[in-house]
Amino acid sequence: MKYPSVHYSDYLEIEKIINAQHPKSDEYKKPAHDELLFIITHQTYELWFKQILFELNSVLSTFHQPQVEENEMGRASARLERIVSILKMVLGQIDVLETMTPLDFLDFRDMLYPASGFQSFQWRLIETKLGLRMGDRLSYNQSPFYKSLAESQQAEMLKVLEEPSLFDALEKWLERTPFLQADDFNFWESYQKAVNDMFQADIETVKNNDRLPPEDKEKNIKSLQDSLKTFDALFDEQAFNEIRQAGNFRLSYKALHAALLIQLYRDQPVFQIPFRIIRALLDIDETMTMWRYRHALMAHRMLGQKIGTGGSSGHKYLADATSKHKIFNDFFNLTTFFIPRSQIPTLPKSISDRMNFHY
Amino acid sequence: MKYPSVHYSDYLEIEKIINAQHPKSDEYKKPAHDELLFIITHQTYELWFKQILFELNSVLSTFHQPQVEENEMGRASARLERIVSILKMVLGQIDVLETMTPLDFLDFRDMLYPASGFQSFQWRLIETKLGLRMGDRLSYNQSPFYKSLAESQQAEMLKVLEEPSLFDALEKWLERTPFLQADDFNFWESYQKAVNDMFQADIETVKNNDRLPPEDKEKNIKSLQDSLKTFDALFDEQAFNEIRQAGNFRLSYKALHAALLIQLYRDQPVFQIPFRIIRALLDIDETMTMWRYRHALMAHRMLGQKIGTGGSSGHKYLADATSKHKIFNDFFNLTTFFIPRSQIPTLPKSISDRMNFHY
Amino acid sequence: MKYPSVHYSDYLEIEKIINAQHPKSDEYKKPAHDELLFIITHQTYELWFKQILFELNSVLSTFHQPQVEENEMGRASARLERIVSILKMVLGQIDVLETMTPLDFLDFRDMLYPASGFQSFQWRLIETKLGLRMGDRLSYNQSPFYKSLAESQQAEMLKVLEEPSLFDALEKWLERTPFLQADDFNFWESYQKAVNDMFQADIETVKNNDRLPPEDKEKNIKSLQDSLKTFDALFDEQAFNEIRQAGNFRLSYKALHAALLIQLYRDQPVFQIPFRIIRALLDIDETMTMWRYRHALMAHRMLGQKIGTGGSSGHKYLADATSKHKIFNDFFNLTTFFIPRSQIPTLPKSISDRMNFHY
Amino acid sequence: MKYPSVHYSDYLEIEKIINAQHPKSDEYKKPAHDELLFIITHQTYELWFKQILFELNSVLSTFHQPQVEENEMGRASARLERIVSILKMVLGQIDVLETMTPLDFLDFRDMLYPASGFQSFQWRLIETKLGLRMGDRLSYNQSPFYKSLAESQQAEMLKVLEEPSLFDALEKWLERTPFLQADDFNFWESYQKAVNDMFQADIETVKNNDRLPPEDKEKNIKSLQDSLKTFDALFDEQAFNEIRQAGNFRLSYKALHAALLIQLYRDQPVFQIPFRIIRALLDIDETMTMWRYRHALMAHRMLGQKIGTGGSSGHKYLADATSKHKIFNDFFNLTTFFIPRSQIPTLPKSISDRMNFHY
Repeated sequence: MKYPSVHYSDYLEIEKIINAQHPKSDEYKKPAHDELLFIITHQTYELWFKQILFELNSVLSTFHQPQVEENEMGRASARLERIVSILKMVLGQIDVLETMTPLDFLDFRDMLYPASGFQSFQWRLIETKLGLRMGDRLSYNQSPFYKSLAESQQAEMLKVLEEPSLFDALEKWLERTPFLQADDFNFWESYQKAVNDMFQADIETVKNNDRLPPEDKEKNIKSLQDSLKTFDALFDEQAFNEIRQAGNFRLSYKALHAALLIQLYRDQPVFQIPFRIIRALLDIDETMTMWRYRHALMAHRMLGQKIGTGGSSGHKYLADATSKHKIFNDFFNLTTFFIPRSQIPTLPKSISDRMNFHY
Repeated sequence: MKYPSVHYSDYLEIEKIINAQHPKSDEYKKPAHDELLFIITHQTYELWFKQILFELNSVLSTFHQPQVEENEMGRASARLERIVSILKMVLGQIDVLETMTPLDFLDFRDMLYPASGFQSFQWRLIETKLGLRMGDRLSYNQSPFYKSLAESQQAEMLKVLEEPSLFDALEKWLERTPFLQADDFNFWESYQKAVNDMFQADIETVKNNDRLPPEDKEKNIKSLQDSLKTFDALFDEQAFNEIRQAGNFRLSYKALHAALLIQLYRDQPVFQIPFRIIRALLDIDETMTMWRYRHALMAHRMLGQKIGTGGSSGHKYLADATSKHKIFNDFFNLTTFFIPRSQIPTLPKSISDRMNFHY
Repeated sequence: MKYPSVHYSDYLEIEKIINAQHPKSDEYKKPAHDELLFIITHQTYELWFKQILFELNSVLSTFHQPQVEENEMGRASARLERIVSILKMVLGQIDVLETMTPLDFLDFRDMLYPASGFQSFQWRLIETKLGLRMGDRLSYNQSPFYKSLAESQQAEMLKVLEEPSLFDALEKWLERTPFLQADDFNFWESYQKAVNDMFQADIETVKNNDRLPPEDKEKNIKSLQDSLKTFDALFDEQAFNEIRQAGNFRLSYKALHAALLIQLYRDQPVFQIPFRIIRALLDIDETMTMWRYRHALMAHRMLGQKIGTGGSSGHKYLADATSKHKIFNDFFNLTTFFIPRSQIPTLPKSISDRMNFHY
Repeated sequence: MKYPSVHYSDYLEIEKIINAQHPKSDEYKKPAHDELLFIITHQTYELWFKQILFELNSVLSTFHQPQVEENEMGRASARLERIVSILKMVLGQIDVLETMTPLDFLDFRDMLYPASGFQSFQWRLIETKLGLRMGDRLSYNQSPFYKSLAESQQAEMLKVLEEPSLFDALEKWLERTPFLQADDFNFWESYQKAVNDMFQADIETVKNNDRLPPEDKEKNIKSLQDSLKTFDALFDEQAFNEIRQAGNFRLSYKALHAALLIQLYRDQPVFQIPFRIIRALLDIDETMTMWRYRHALMAHRMLGQKIGTGGSSGHKYLADATSKHKIFNDFFNLTTFFIPRSQIPTLPKSISDRMNFHY
């Protein structure tokens, strides 16, 4: 073969990797056994974050194209699913880290001050590239999050914050979905009818539920009526824009329509892979949210009510950020607009034909 | 052998088990493929809940004894760890359930109304037997949680609510810990000194942290001083009782002392297993919290903003319950009172001798 | 709503489910604490097996059709992936079962004799419906495997053994793959050329590998030449049929071609989902193999060298069955015929056009 | 505080870690997307191997002492359990690696030749330090395993092979177990009687099992009688030494006795932690075995029947090594000597007293 021989150790640069652990507790001549676990856990996190960024960048460059070829979709979907797979595994790693007890952590905790996971540049990059904006974030120690980063990283972060994210690219891609405006079929009109029918049925259900006390009935009916009003978003662009300005939606009117179309007609060959892409994004968001939450619990366990290594009350911040830092919330909320399959309008053959192969 | 032959199918009563699935969607002649997954997932949950209750009851009967023999400790610890193992596995099962998409769920969701996981008697029993009291719970649909149970189960639940829980039994057991009052060694006095020294050092740290803006310094110092004040709880029974009445602690003064002693001196042979028991309880609490949180996320994904199957806005309730329903919160908060191992007072030989074997 | 109210307990038939545990050790008045865990673990297995069979049957009925519509492919793929997800979770359950120690097992082991997991009808059904034939199986206690089943189940098993399996249906489906015979492009000829080029290069690699001792070089070169000969299977139907008759392949000549085509051109829109279907089958086979192997290890740990509960030396049988009972071995071996993407012949536009959407 | 400020990035040497990936496919200007995943997966393996070695060395230094203090036992046990936890997580990582398909691997496989996981120095160290001897190993490419290592590592490996392993240290520690020779109680005599009784009962069971054909009965009875003969090992040192020389046992007569004593009387306070230590070693062995087996499956999937990257037919070697490289096989086989708890001789109070605390 044309390639020179390679040895496992050289190829993987193992010497470099396994000699990059320098516990502070050794430096200060107060060796703390568990500091190595702490270092290695975080180093493997960062290696996996690099991998996630690599996959993310490749998916980004696919979706940033003015036109995404169908033969790139399977790969994009597989790479997003790989990110899910990595995130799940990395979430499980916390089990290993938690074999370190709070007392073991105390042996070296003070030596790390004020280092903290909040300073992970790559994690912040992942969030940002997925689509978390400056304004979506909880402020930390009353200054913008990027101030926690190393100085050399702050400029790059600000630059990335300006670039279109996966959320942005996806929104554009959704807006370009064909079939949104099919001259020969007014999908949204028939959908609107189906929705109204369904909600009237739901309201009846509550009315007839004898287990619910009257006050609850009233409250639930009110809530159903409010939900129905939310549907205005689907059918009235102006209503939607108001709701959106209030922060209840982030996707554009058209993109939301497209996402709903993909979800409802996911069995059409042309939507099978796009459906998986949306599902992978939901999985990514969900697993990152679990990761934050699990860290909040661990911080509570490790630190009690004491201040975090970074000088903030760690677990409260984390618990709050958990719910706030979801990026594809619209895809979660989109479910509100689903109606049972039996009531979904049937596509006319002229349209379903165009969604299929012809060989 | 004296035992008659047994066949796998009969022994495991498989016919009974695998014929106990009757999808509503079949009953109503609108077969929804994913309803079986929904049923089986919940049935396996309930089977595992039965197992958890069985282990829990066995641990309860051990700790309810006026005197727990040392040779029962290894077993109690193993059974609590088994509960952790079950809970982790059951948490992972949500990955399987989430292969059901919201649209698939819609195919039969309405047929289940108002059935809901809130009605799981066994889960409520687990929480209650661990120590979750009526008053600790978030109310649901403005009525006490046990009203959601089947009528036949409500009376039993009220009875169990009256019985001493594992929390209660454990508290008594902790209070009986020997070594709390050793005539020849005033542990708490030397511990108090060590604590004060440590906090003064921490305050200095913040003062000298140039990265923190002045306002943050002040805030953090204030927070450290507040924390130090919390330590009064350890040294002043009256101060403790006030804090406790305010809801910040649930364990008694003596039990808290004992738990701290076990944590700090866990390497002493006599405390090696008790330490594992406390750790298992933390793991149980943490995994149950994760389970609730994961369900909240799933509810959001499955239902959007729509009302839950039980008629409440599911994911909000779940997310709120998540943080509120932790039972052994004191063990989490106890970490606040840890000091680095190097500063923990050394036990006099007279005491450490009594904590060891002599063969 | 038109549906009557439903309660969680009734809907899930919980009373039936959680009252179907009758430990033999209770019956014989020698209560063994861990028998309940043993029962419940196996009952949840069987519940999940029911679910797997349900998904499998649905996929079977899809692939048994004379023509599989493209809009059923996404669903079939999702259901196979669900089976993978269930199998992985069920594999993890062994961690829970292994919290039972061999000594705990001994407390009731004799009471179960000769019951054994070999008697699980549903597991055997899963294997058979996937495509494991009578002759593929290791015999157990020198009688055919179905003799271990309950008598009422033996007839059904023999019937299912006669029916076409997923392997069979898939083979037919693969044989129908369009594009296998494209008049305007001789794929196999250009592929054959690419293969020959690649192997010559590999042989050179070995020749030039200075780390290998001469004897090894020779052996490796011989082995490469043997592998190249295996490629005859792809290009010479008669050679293939001989190899196949010797038991080295199970798929037909045409089906193997189709599977290879899907693997190599998986990025073509028309193959994106078929590729996932093959991958899911590999995952199913791999996870079932891991499951058998893990059981072999557990049997060794639980029973030492002693005979299994069914009267055979359990772990040896299991370890042997592990490797022998793989069903889609051809898909594993197919990799042998892959060549690097850079060397895969480019499809002419006339063909790749027909593999794409046109909207 | 006395410690200077620390930043997350500097502390964790992240720049060094995430800049140590240099794909060969980039070097050769034929970028293969999945090579980064391949590199990072293996780098995280090696980071975890470093951690495992660190824990292992600490446990080794504990057990190499002429006398292990009881207050070090809890820690040793926790560290072995941490190794189990790491191994389980690392086993799960294969799910991530398998998101790389064989075709993706082919894009760069040839560039790595003959690098291979067989060359991992740290993995070999783990095996060796646990107790895998040169002679226990399958030879690889007909030369001793250490020849695959980088030259600089071969000398160190030979040195470590000479040092006492954990197996050796543990054997010595077991041999020192008190209570083995209690003047006032002849444990082994009463155990021998219990064993004989039990086996006679088992033989009866087989005789009376009507489902077994006569030939099987005979075979099983023969096998039980053979097993009973194995018990000679427990009671006749000379018989044991013959069996041991034949390779059926590795532990010394005394050490085997001690391990059995710990297993049978694990509820005695003095044995609660030693029991956990043995269990952790079984878990380590089992998980490492699963790891090898899973790699064998993956190799089959990735490479088909083709030679591994190191020039050997990978998956066959791995599958064979899987079963052969178990280290604590004696602990697995020890189960053969267990008898039901109800038949285990009761300890006289004089002895059980010495196994307990007295405070």
